Amino acid sequence: MKTETIRLTELKTECIKALKNAGCDDANADAIAGTVCAAERDHCHSHGVFRMPGYLKSIRNGKAKADAAPTWSKIAPGVIRGDGDNGFAPLSLKLMGPELAALAKAQGVACLALTNMHHFAAMWPEMEMMTDEGLVAMTMTSAFPIVPPPGGKKPLFGTNPFAFGWPRQNGEAVIFDMATASKAHGEILIAAREGKTLPPGTIIDKNGNPSTNPADVQGGAILAFGGAKGALVSMMVELMAGALIGEPFSFETAKKVDADGLANRGGQLIIAMDPARFGDASGWAAHAEALFTEMVKQDGVRLPSQRRYEARAMTEASGHVEVAADILAIIREAAA
Amino acid sequence: MKTETIRLTELKTECIKALKNAGCDDANADAIAGTVCAAERDHCHSHGVFRMPGYLKSIRNGKAKADAAPTWSKIAPGVIRGDGDNGFAPLSLKLMGPELAALAKAQGVACLALTNMHHFAAMWPEMEMMTDEGLVAMTMTSAFPIVPPPGGKKPLFGTNPFAFGWPRQNGEAVIFDMATASKAHGEILIAAREGKTLPPGTIIDKNGNPSTNPADVQGGAILAFGGAKGALVSMMVELMAGALIGEPFSFETAKKVDADGLANRGGQLIIAMDPARFGDASGWAAHAEALFTEMVKQDGVRLPSQRRYEARAMTEASGHVEVAADILAIIREAAA
Repeated sequence: MKTETIRLTELKTECIKALKNAGCDDANADAIAGTVCAAERDHCHSHGVFRMPGYLKSIRNGKAKADAAPTWSKIAPGVIRGDGDNGFAPLSLKLMGPELAALAKAQGVACLALTNMHHFAAMWPEMEMMTDEGLVAMTMTSAFPIVPPPGGKKPLFGTNPFAFGWPRQNGEAVIFDMATASKAHGEILIAAREGKTLPPGTIIDKNGNPSTNPADVQGGAILAFGGAKGALVSMMVELMAGALIGEPFSFETAKKVDADGLANRGGQLIIAMDPARFGDASGWAAHAEALFTEMVKQDGVRLPSQRRYEARAMTEASGHVEVAADILAIIREAAA
Repeated sequence: MKTETIRLTELKTECIKALKNAGCDDANADAIAGTVCAAERDHCHSHGVFRMPGYLKSIRNGKAKADAAPTWSKIAPGVIRGDGDNGFAPLSLKLMGPELAALAKAQGVACLALTNMHHFAAMWPEMEMMTDEGLVAMTMTSAFPIVPPPGGKKPLFGTNPFAFGWPRQNGEAVIFDMATASKAHGEILIAAREGKTLPPGTIIDKNGNPSTNPADVQGGAILAFGGAKGALVSMMVELMAGALIGEPFSFETAKKVDADGLANRGGQLIIAMDPARFGDASGWAAHAEALFTEMVKQDGVRLPSQRRYEARAMTEASGHVEVAADILAIIREAAA
């Protein structure tokens, strides 16, 4: 893949211009470009500029609202319900994240039921928003059906990411952000294009038979990680980001819209907890470090997100990122 | 295995007598016997009378307090902290479950940080306590080190169960209760005794090499379900049931006590949410049914816990359960 090196600040400016030319207002353009560039900064290329053509397409074809004005209100002492106004998630999260953090600190635990928005990014950014505030958090969102239920062979659940964040007082937060599918759909499509095979247990073909040929995912399904247990976790994500907050399940989304590879309107649940309010306010942080120390003592063990933080430090030192040249050309054309 | 059929009410009476003879007060004996007999009623034999010798031993040797008097207080608007007084979990859960349910209904979301107790049972009973109140809930507890961290080869995390419950208005709650280890330690020991082999990916031997010989778990480790992703879920359980609430990690427990197969003093976190307080009070229940209907339309798919509910119906119709004769003899002797 041909790449081009660009200053991160310039990349953000170009993304903002492109989003505004497509119709975004300042607030949405800045929030979306910030999320895209944070991913590139951390070398999370799958959620970086690679997503820009999708954002632009969704805005241009009216699927997502370019000038969405998210609103929210506290509907129970521990629950904030947000309405993304059919826009993209980053602005909603930027606006409601601090509200959720404040409520979690006041209550000990609080939830954000974010509705009517399009999530087309990774979920570690919102976990970092919480851990930066010293909060423990988890989040879930559903998607488009591609994963069978436990014991089944036909797609019903989405790739359904689940993320968790743990704050640290001296060090980068411990965050994991995982699809509950055994592999991301995009990675399987890339493996197909490159003629690679998949590990057993990743997909089944259209007849429900195990396959290691990535092309068989067409008409088939991606299995949940970890067999039936992982499929149950995926079911939990459907229920929590769907029925609990009054948003569609993955299979309901598929009845309304075609699979276009873009993000669909849906919901997200975030649960935030203040470790200072659970009874060990002075000890929890050092206590957690004892676990992390034991983990990394073992050969081959790294804390989740560390590779991302190393990439971030490199980017911050150089000021530059290396991005796909063809996508940068698309962004520049859209920005012109 | 030789079994004996006994009326469930008689079994409970015998268990209560045995526990009281060992030193339990009425409240603890009734709560523990209730949990044991609920498991037998549902044909969850691994957590039924099979556990009674362990309960009795822990009480007799003073590891767990027979007349524990649990206490609790609300330490934040959404957080109850409970102290199990070094007793077994069932009485704490019986006393604090209703407090947690009331708080979740008042707040929308609430947590119970249960500390200083011994959890020697399944976790679906406390999930049922919540779903019976119309609440969504999840719970976690850690144990004794047997599972390596992601990428590692030496035991650090416990089998670390994670359970989730979803209430239904017309039908039994959808509940899953899973070890985040790929297989329960007890099942592996049984496989070793019976000369069976394990599926690949279940354990590693003392040198860190994959093995299908269950005897190799001795000095080796049980892998988390679903590879590195499952190991991260296990890490989350350690943090939530450990550092968040000021209770020991699995590896810290192992430094203090020998592995005796009994439950150790530790903590449990329960998060409860009231789906009537998240913005779709009139729709959430029917909405969830739409997902369950789609799931069971597929060949081979059953909702989690259904087998347990069928067993329960059978027990309730007959009034009888069939239990291991040798263990029943131990209980009767202890009850005499």
